[in-house]
Amino acid sequence: MVNMVNYPNKQKPKNPNLQTYTANRGMNLEEDLNRTNQYYLDHDIAIIHKKPTPITVVNVQYPSRSQAKITEAYYKIASTTDYNGVYQGKAIDFEAKETQSKTAFSLSSLHDHQVIHMQAIARHQGIAFLIVRFSTLDETYLLHIEDLLDFVKLNTRKSIPLSYFKEKATFIPYHYLKPVDYITIIHSRTHKGS
Amino acid sequence: MVNMVNYPNKQKPKNPNLQTYTANRGMNLEEDLNRTNQYYLDHDIAIIHKKPTPITVVNVQYPSRSQAKITEAYYKIASTTDYNGVYQGKAIDFEAKETQSKTAFSLSSLHDHQVIHMQAIARHQGIAFLIVRFSTLDETYLLHIEDLLDFVKLNTRKSIPLSYFKEKATFIPYHYLKPVDYITIIHSRTHKGS
Repeated sequence: MVNMVNYPNKQKPKNPNLQTYTANRGMNLEEDLNRTNQYYLDHDIAIIHKKPTPITVVNVQYPSRSQAKITEAYYKIASTTDYNGVYQGKAIDFEAKETQSKTAFSLSSLHDHQVIHMQAIARHQGIAFLIVRFSTLDETYLLHIEDLLDFVKLNTRKSIPLSYFKEKATFIPYHYLKPVDYITIIHSRTHKGS
Repeated sequence: MVNMVNYPNKQKPKNPNLQTYTANRGMNLEEDLNRTNQYYLDHDIAIIHKKPTPITVVNVQYPSRSQAKITEAYYKIASTTDYNGVYQGKAIDFEAKETQSKTAFSLSSLHDHQVIHMQAIARHQGIAFLIVRFSTLDETYLLHIEDLLDFVKLNTRKSIPLSYFKEKATFIPYHYLKPVDYITIIHSRTHKGS
């Protein structure tokens, strides 16, 4: 059973208190998501994994029978998102990004095919979203793909202002055991009105 | 809309005719799955991707500002399965294996944590299965995780005989445009009796 806490969707983010801020310091978003996903696994709440970074291997050597050593390879641009898995049967799919900006999230850090991918997941009734951390402010938000697409459709600017996150996204409060507890937010949304 | 063809679950596999056999020759299972998943994407039937191979990067050089060259890296053992995504909102998760054997599929080609992962997906109401191709016979089967776990529970042998696939798995007939059309089988199963 998930121990549910209600974070109403339109709740305005509160300033995290000093203790939370200190606890969070030094951990980046990826580490926090790893810990959160491990917590979900350990407590059998959801099965979510980070996908490996896509790499094109050009050369491999075999210094021993048992081990292959890659000696030339290059990073590829990801065609999908970084994280996916399952929660209560539903496909979960999201991308996570950190920004140093205090005012806006630059859309240039998302690839077009990542947005198209998340749109496709949502069209197929999966749950697709973006997690954005404003590191300097120590504020993390969950923005559903529909609200991301709305912004792109209605705006010509190449960055989403923090005010749009405050209005449309859900603030993810820091939790020591599950630092980025997005499943609680997804749960509230999918069980809304039931 | 998915153009559905019914392949009843317990149907005994038919010998593929010569034309099918010839068409299939030379393509391995991974290529066939890539083509199938691309067909699903192009026709907006399902969003399924192969995960990148997990690699541990040890050394990276930067010969130019724009490109990072990986000069030392090693393959990691996969902790999850190779393929996942969404079909009609449901999380889909599977592993695909090829064997040259004409009589059995060796369980040593699956890692324990892959089986545990598929079991977890199923427990969370996702759809988890194994696709096995007996290359020499040119026969491909879909075995649901439940039937895989049943076999492991009831047997001490380290390989699953072909006869078990003929009895419990579903034969995947070769199709030119979607060579390994597993979604049709998943669809029949999830809509059984409706």
